Amino acid sequence: MIAVLGGTGDLGGALARRWAKAGLNVAIGSRTAESAARAAEALSASIGCKVASGSNVDVAALSDIVVVTVPFAAQEAILASIKGAVKGKLVVDTTVPLIPPKVMRVQLPPEGSAAVRAQRILGDAVTVVSAFHTVSAEKLADDEPFDADVLIFGDNKEARARVVELAGKAGLRGLHGGVLANSAAAEALTSVLIFVNKTYKVEGGAGIRLTGEFVLPD
Amino acid sequence: MIAVLGGTGDLGGALARRWAKAGLNVAIGSRTAESAARAAEALSASIGCKVASGSNVDVAALSDIVVVTVPFAAQEAILASIKGAVKGKLVVDTTVPLIPPKVMRVQLPPEGSAAVRAQRILGDAVTVVSAFHTVSAEKLADDEPFDADVLIFGDNKEARARVVELAGKAGLRGLHGGVLANSAAAEALTSVLIFVNKTYKVEGGAGIRLTGEFVLPD
Repeated sequence: MIAVLGGTGDLGGALARRWAKAGLNVAIGSRTAESAARAAEALSASIGCKVASGSNVDVAALSDIVVVTVPFAAQEAILASIKGAVKGKLVVDTTVPLIPPKVMRVQLPPEGSAAVRAQRILGDAVTVVSAFHTVSAEKLADDEPFDADVLIFGDNKEARARVVELAGKAGLRGLHGGVLANSAAAEALTSVLIFVNKTYKVEGGAGIRLTGEFVLPD
Repeated sequence: MIAVLGGTGDLGGALARRWAKAGLNVAIGSRTAESAARAAEALSASIGCKVASGSNVDVAALSDIVVVTVPFAAQEAILASIKGAVKGKLVVDTTVPLIPPKVMRVQLPPEGSAAVRAQRILGDAVTVVSAFHTVSAEKLADDEPFDADVLIFGDNKEARARVVELAGKAGLRGLHGGVLANSAAAEALTSVLIFVNKTYKVEGGAGIRLTGEFVLPD
């Protein structure tokens, strides 16, 4: 099972929807089991597949892969709360270090990236991969294909490859972006995209594509 | 006149060539006037337009716009050497904080970005804009159009707009990316692109495109 913590939010809800539609076994987590249950029922009714739910900690404990889609300000507390439940598992962190009100300004944390911060909080017994930073939640929320890549970072290549596959299940091209520390690039780019969206009035939100001829790795 | 410091290098040489072909008045700067003269003569002969040359400091003193295309390790010394010559001018810094041998790993400097470091070295009397980080020098070096955007950062909007225009003269779409501190995004992305080029064997080097419908700002 794949848990989506913060699954009542825009990004988490959209990922849960796409993965459930692709046939994955999805559980929505939220701060309270009640709000998660409401979101899961609405999603189940909309797409006609059963979606599980529970508190963030409960769905994390029941799942093999745990995707964290929470605001930067909530990252530390939520990761600390699930630390015991995700030992030996894959945690996919999507956190972008946006610090209101200056969300159009790159403000990377002292660790260099929110992803490295996640690894520090969770400890070495957890495999952290980061991804989905630059994806427009608005475009992801409807079922249409859209023009964007997902950069995927992690120190473990096999774990990254699992998230490349998850991006594919969500209808997006996932690309290996290197070590976890490289997550700084996609996290910083998100503030740039917010600036670009405002400056160029980009409806639904800009995305990124890597250009060139790619040869798939072995 | 537009000076290209480090104009004997791959990126500088390619920018000088494209701008000279577009009819701009270009001067190639290098550590020694002799090596700059050799590069300028070769370029002049190849494209049939006169290209000026001189030491980095001399061409900086003679130009209105000074584009700095030097390795990270040389950035501080070269900027310090031209500081007096560029007062009141526009300096376009292209420096990417690559620290060999780990060039595929994001290693942003303590200032947060090479661009903010450039502004600190040059002082407030100089307008710094950063750009061209993610552009493949190899693709830029031939005269064919290629599929890539240029993200442009600076605290001064009008100065950024001048560099958007320079990107256009080089045949590329330049996009406002926000304040100078946001340069961290494109600088970090360059290490990611080096990783991607190796992982996916991208011939000539990958680039980036921002996707979505853009409305040009006033």
